[in-house]
Amino acid sequence: MSNSNRITIKKDNEPIYDIVIAKDYSLLHEELKALNLTGRKVCIVTDSTVSGLHLSSLLEILKDYAKVVETFTFAAGEKSKTLSTVEKLYEKLILSKFDRNDMLFALGGGVVGDLTGYAAATYLRGISFVQIPTTLLACVDSSIGGKTGVDFNAYKNMVGAFHQPKLVYINLAHLYTLDDRQFVNGMGEVIKHGLIKDVEYYRELKDNRSLILKREPEALRKMVFRSCEIKQEVVEVDPTEKGVRALLNFGHTIGHSVERCMDFKLLHGECVSIGMAGSAYLSYQRGSLTMEEFKEIEEVISSYQLPVALPENCLSAEGILEAVFHDKKVDGDKIKFILLKEVGEAVMDSTVTGEEIRKAIDYIMKSKNK
Amino acid sequence: MSNSNRITIKKDNEPIYDIVIAKDYSLLHEELKALNLTGRKVCIVTDSTVSGLHLSSLLEILKDYAKVVETFTFAAGEKSKTLSTVEKLYEKLILSKFDRNDMLFALGGGVVGDLTGYAAATYLRGISFVQIPTTLLACVDSSIGGKTGVDFNAYKNMVGAFHQPKLVYINLAHLYTLDDRQFVNGMGEVIKHGLIKDVEYYRELKDNRSLILKREPEALRKMVFRSCEIKQEVVEVDPTEKGVRALLNFGHTIGHSVERCMDFKLLHGECVSIGMAGSAYLSYQRGSLTMEEFKEIEEVISSYQLPVALPENCLSAEGILEAVFHDKKVDGDKIKFILLKEVGEAVMDSTVTGEEIRKAIDYIMKSKNK
Repeated sequence: MSNSNRITIKKDNEPIYDIVIAKDYSLLHEELKALNLTGRKVCIVTDSTVSGLHLSSLLEILKDYAKVVETFTFAAGEKSKTLSTVEKLYEKLILSKFDRNDMLFALGGGVVGDLTGYAAATYLRGISFVQIPTTLLACVDSSIGGKTGVDFNAYKNMVGAFHQPKLVYINLAHLYTLDDRQFVNGMGEVIKHGLIKDVEYYRELKDNRSLILKREPEALRKMVFRSCEIKQEVVEVDPTEKGVRALLNFGHTIGHSVERCMDFKLLHGECVSIGMAGSAYLSYQRGSLTMEEFKEIEEVISSYQLPVALPENCLSAEGILEAVFHDKKVDGDKIKFILLKEVGEAVMDSTVTGEEIRKAIDYIMKSKNK
Repeated sequence: MSNSNRITIKKDNEPIYDIVIAKDYSLLHEELKALNLTGRKVCIVTDSTVSGLHLSSLLEILKDYAKVVETFTFAAGEKSKTLSTVEKLYEKLILSKFDRNDMLFALGGGVVGDLTGYAAATYLRGISFVQIPTTLLACVDSSIGGKTGVDFNAYKNMVGAFHQPKLVYINLAHLYTLDDRQFVNGMGEVIKHGLIKDVEYYRELKDNRSLILKREPEALRKMVFRSCEIKQEVVEVDPTEKGVRALLNFGHTIGHSVERCMDFKLLHGECVSIGMAGSAYLSYQRGSLTMEEFKEIEEVISSYQLPVALPENCLSAEGILEAVFHDKKVDGDKIKFILLKEVGEAVMDSTVTGEEIRKAIDYIMKSKNK
């Protein structure tokens, strides 16, 4: 794995923005100089949890570079990820007379990043924004690739836009303020990266579990770097999810349905983990994974304290199946389902039947969490 | 002027969509085949005025090409151009299970086109849409160039996105259902095209006034074609308004302020006409236009039954000036004002002072409508 602290995201071979991975904010100064904030206004958007932890330090730094630094804080949680919160942000920007040259900074997890990016995509037909992800999930997944959006009537990310940030700055120190459940929430996507793209990385995650769970600095840095690289490789080839980017949805078709049926009581990474177990089961049923490979996937997920089965008696298979077919990743009437061709390689398959999905859901309902 | 009925909009020399100008819907069939709607759902979005006039004929045609044709009609008028209407449209699309391969058709004037385009830009992070403009203003201006958006708290187009249509189909027959005030509303932008880009076109508009006001078919077709060409030339060079596209804002800085101060009682083209008179006065004051050229501009605008002065006693110069400085076309603290360097050539100028704008506003307040 690389010792570099920078990944450059390109489009048509032209660099469009960098991901900088650092142990603190020391590298941010040079980045801010390059963004040329002189004479510009910026607004830090964050939530009620993160503001108490990290807002003041970012505020202090930005004050030296921008003409005006505003802040906008909303109540933490998925329930705030709505057009109504975005409208309050628009109001703030209008009252502060933000124009097309001004900039937003998203300081927080996936909800903050998605919502801020969407406001930046749609205020005055698009202004610039910077991602400063503070959760592992946001660092390795949602802050990269320009997907922005909000939920609408309990449909996740139904309203959104593709809008690339000017910079993703990952301050690894922020990951030490996460509690264990929030930290491993991000491990769902990390394990997914290994499963869909890199069997060697998957093995390392299996072997280095105790170092990673202890958040040993160098293990953490290497892991975040490699996951960002894998995400980069996929989104560069297919920035607007017309093809290969869909592979990142491994575990998500079932995962999103579980998330909605559980009314967001389970975290995203937990639902994706359950969804990955179901999709791995389906891949095993189809003969692309051996029983041993499938069982190992369940064990690796479980070893990170993530669920591979649904809480007992809390959901009906029918309800989840119905939600799958209401999910947006539907092409015509066919589901684009992501399967594992082998460990370390995912494929998109449009032939998966409702019956097969039903069996996978039955499996993760009957299966016991280890 | 060309006899062609098609203008192709390019980006980086690649064709991205066509504007087709036809006397009826006869050319639409081939276009729909090319869009390949087989197996797809479409939703025609229109307003309460247009639906009674033109919805059924479009509906009949689309039924032969798409799997499902839904319709969404909202109350006509600028007051409907809000996020609240967009949210009702999202609901309709969700309930009708529209996915990323489905498509919207905007059938109407600028409000319908801007709102539909914005919904298409943001539903599932962007779906395709087609513009079928039914007003002269929409044909020559708002349907071309990918600007989409809605108003927010009485700020015009404060929320929006750049999202290019798949096709702009202009059925000139629709222009005969406009009343005279609605028709000449579009002439404001048409005259602007001559003034900023093509002195010969401006002279033709002056000479052919009676044919155009009678909506003589060939005069109308040629005019719509040339105005679309001028709009194309500008937006192709600068799709996201970072530079030269700003020239299309000639008359709009003052025009938008008048529009807002008059609480939208005057039509857009009327406000732009008043704004053009003010901006032409400013260009004359700066010595780029002679008194004769300036007076001729006022006469040409007036000859099309458009105003060059404000209704008496209805507005304060202070109010309009303040609105100018609240307007979004502000770069830092400087106004990007569009002046005429000569008749047929506009320039962007950042040195125009508040005092100069104040004098121009005083002029259009004291001036009498001819």
